[in-house]
Amino acid sequence: MSIDESAPDCSIQRTLDAIGDRWTLLILRDLFRGVRRFSRIQADLGIARNLLTARLNSLADEGVVRRVPYQQRPPRHEYHLTDKGRALSPALMALMRWGDQYYSDAGAPIELVHDVCHTRLELQSWCTTCDTAVDPTHIRSAPGRGHDFESPEDHEHPI
Amino acid sequence: MSIDESAPDCSIQRTLDAIGDRWTLLILRDLFRGVRRFSRIQADLGIARNLLTARLNSLADEGVVRRVPYQQRPPRHEYHLTDKGRALSPALMALMRWGDQYYSDAGAPIELVHDVCHTRLELQSWCTTCDTAVDPTHIRSAPGRGHDFESPEDHEHPI
Repeated sequence: MSIDESAPDCSIQRTLDAIGDRWTLLILRDLFRGVRRFSRIQADLGIARNLLTARLNSLADEGVVRRVPYQQRPPRHEYHLTDKGRALSPALMALMRWGDQYYSDAGAPIELVHDVCHTRLELQSWCTTCDTAVDPTHIRSAPGRGHDFESPEDHEHPI
Repeated sequence: MSIDESAPDCSIQRTLDAIGDRWTLLILRDLFRGVRRFSRIQADLGIARNLLTARLNSLADEGVVRRVPYQQRPPRHEYHLTDKGRALSPALMALMRWGDQYYSDAGAPIELVHDVCHTRLELQSWCTTCDTAVDPTHIRSAPGRGHDFESPEDHEHPI
């Protein structure tokens, strides 16, 4: 099974095809944090202009960001997350929390909190039937509606 | 703020430094699914041997995987996720769910379910004070213990 052949049966791979390069994920992080203008993103990341242009065009093509003009002469745009872009929030939050856990001896640089009570939020798997949080050891994978039943193997362990 | 200068203050960036390349994330996906031997990972991903060796060495150096011998002559190893590696489960689950949502017209190829009741699991932010799931619009970011207070800006929006 090569990368291309397996693509139709793996949502992780489809996601990485769309947004899975390091620059793209860092650009998305900036957009979530309100850094939306080309020049500010460029300065923030230290990325070459041509690379940033290519990544932003790709994100726009994927419908993850949309361009919003903020100046006419010369024309300048901000890059805003679409609903599809904002739906990446749990993925970026999970990547951040892992970094907090293993690469932040001094404690998390940024905490994500509930706006109502300022409690630090947990990211967890939830079972609506049992009305409980589910530990990773109790997660199993099962073929879904979009499963390719000629897929070469079933999964011993879930993601 | 360049990539390197900003690294100490961003857990997403630290995470991407450790595991944020496309091959590495696909290797981790395979390990979660029980594909643990070099030859099987290589065949599954269609990755060049030297690239796979480099990525697995890097994951071992980071403490994300450990080598477990399964054969003496010639020596052969399986790659097992450590606790630190398994802690990436929510991140990979979140990337998968986004792909399900936006790139799976036929439905999710794989569902993650609770082993007790087979209910499809949700990944959500949870507030232990309010005992409720928290929508992304109600998440705010705040400086944590490890925050660099000389950081150039506060974040308008959370991840």
